[in-house]
Amino acid sequence: MGLRVGIIGSGAVGTYYGAKLAHAGTDVHLLVRGDLSEIRQHGIFVRGENENFQVPKINSYNSTKEIGLCDLVMIAVKSTSNSELIDLVPPLLHKQTMLLTLQNGLGNEEFLAERFGAEHVLGGLCFIAVRRHSKTEVERYDNGLIVLGEFGRPAAPRTHQIAAEFSRAGIKYSVTDTLALERWRKLIWNIPFNGLSIVAGGIDTAAIVRDENLRQLTLDLMNEVIVAANKCGHQLPSDAWREHMRRTDSMSGYKPSTLSDWEAGRPLEIEAIWGEPLRRGIAAGATMPRTEMLYSLLNKLDGERRNGAP
Amino acid sequence: MGLRVGIIGSGAVGTYYGAKLAHAGTDVHLLVRGDLSEIRQHGIFVRGENENFQVPKINSYNSTKEIGLCDLVMIAVKSTSNSELIDLVPPLLHKQTMLLTLQNGLGNEEFLAERFGAEHVLGGLCFIAVRRHSKTEVERYDNGLIVLGEFGRPAAPRTHQIAAEFSRAGIKYSVTDTLALERWRKLIWNIPFNGLSIVAGGIDTAAIVRDENLRQLTLDLMNEVIVAANKCGHQLPSDAWREHMRRTDSMSGYKPSTLSDWEAGRPLEIEAIWGEPLRRGIAAGATMPRTEMLYSLLNKLDGERRNGAP
Repeated sequence: MGLRVGIIGSGAVGTYYGAKLAHAGTDVHLLVRGDLSEIRQHGIFVRGENENFQVPKINSYNSTKEIGLCDLVMIAVKSTSNSELIDLVPPLLHKQTMLLTLQNGLGNEEFLAERFGAEHVLGGLCFIAVRRHSKTEVERYDNGLIVLGEFGRPAAPRTHQIAAEFSRAGIKYSVTDTLALERWRKLIWNIPFNGLSIVAGGIDTAAIVRDENLRQLTLDLMNEVIVAANKCGHQLPSDAWREHMRRTDSMSGYKPSTLSDWEAGRPLEIEAIWGEPLRRGIAAGATMPRTEMLYSLLNKLDGERRNGAP
Repeated sequence: MGLRVGIIGSGAVGTYYGAKLAHAGTDVHLLVRGDLSEIRQHGIFVRGENENFQVPKINSYNSTKEIGLCDLVMIAVKSTSNSELIDLVPPLLHKQTMLLTLQNGLGNEEFLAERFGAEHVLGGLCFIAVRRHSKTEVERYDNGLIVLGEFGRPAAPRTHQIAAEFSRAGIKYSVTDTLALERWRKLIWNIPFNGLSIVAGGIDTAAIVRDENLRQLTLDLMNEVIVAANKCGHQLPSDAWREHMRRTDSMSGYKPSTLSDWEAGRPLEIEAIWGEPLRRGIAAGATMPRTEMLYSLLNKLDGERRNGAP
């Protein structure tokens, strides 16, 4: 029997994966903010390379109480909204419910584990470029891979059960036994590119890697992250930056999600992407001056804007 | 007999000191870009605490050929325009001409020494907040002190001759035997504040020192500068940052000159303030990750703007 899936977060990521699963016949229930009439009338349109489809009808709700118990809850809100999960999650929980956070950075699994029990928690790293054009239309620009893993444990039968559901829906996935390591590996990319794209003036990845100084700074930041991860007990090879740079050099200029957030006036996921890795790295004895500087600058930029200061 | 003084650069600093000297009866000759009619008709108005005067007539020119030989040439163009000095200076030079650069950062004395002979060169560090409201009107907001010294030598009789001329004009001054050391001491302030004011989003000194993270970053940058200066053979006490912070904490929010340049769309003095200190520090074995990061970010921001990119 299939999983009953609840999705919290109807931004680009939640809408895209929700639509993919629903299109394949999974029993999906989507929490949506605000007016439901449009999505109830039109469903969801998905566009992208090799996919172009409409889900004419998708179960959508304004509250998780209406959704009720789920076997799998995919969490796709910004980590800056985590406090809202304290009320949103309980109506969905039964004893075996899997809470799968698709959020960026570090600390989200821990947040869920502390509130709802570590045994419920899994994490997924999304390698995807996707944009929501409206409540009912998302476009995927690149990839779509989810790396799935258990929080603090190797993959289990249920991890593969989720993977199977993804597979059936044509969602690319891989399963990892070391989710925390993979989170750090992804940060090797996110810490420099998401940050520099903003503080260097609103530029994409191509502009960063083409600029000689910023390219070097990117490498220096990547090295800080690798060293910190290893001090924290993970085992990233010292040249783990190489694959990230190769991929970034080969792709066309891309706006990191934090730059999109910045341009759209949304709060930045500063604690998950920079704050928490920094605190863990420093506590483990790492020296991260450049990461720290990015953190300080982003914090001020984000804070000034939210306080309405110049 | 008094000095015949030429002033290259009719921005805020050149106009202010030129007017002060002319007002006291010094034989001042001012190089001015563009139309001279306004300044020839109205002279210069100076405003500021305890001063409010007009110099009704000041010798002003469009070319240094018309000015002719001078005993003292005060150079007050942005360091980004140094290449123009190659043609501007020679018509002013006699054997004893003193070339006094009032420019920011490191490398300006060396530039003049290489082209015109080290024996001509002196430097002055301006501690002043002054703004040009129009070609004929400047306002001084704070201080006005010039620290005067010889390039690569202790102060000489002629250094004191300039000091006497300043004194007569009511310009605050001090004379130093170690100009290079004083340049580094000033950089302890300029490197963090001039840079952070831009990359943290266009904020003044008060906003920087009030923000806990940026305050710490300022201290970390100051420490990098002190260590680099000492590696370069100067002797700055390790707590040389303290006086700078005390002064900054006690003054009201102030826009560093580089932020004013940025807001006015002028090129930034990146090489003099960050590039040259960084190259010297690193060559001497210092580690300056934060200064380097500021340099890289400012370079990109400045470059993007000048290339008309987004």
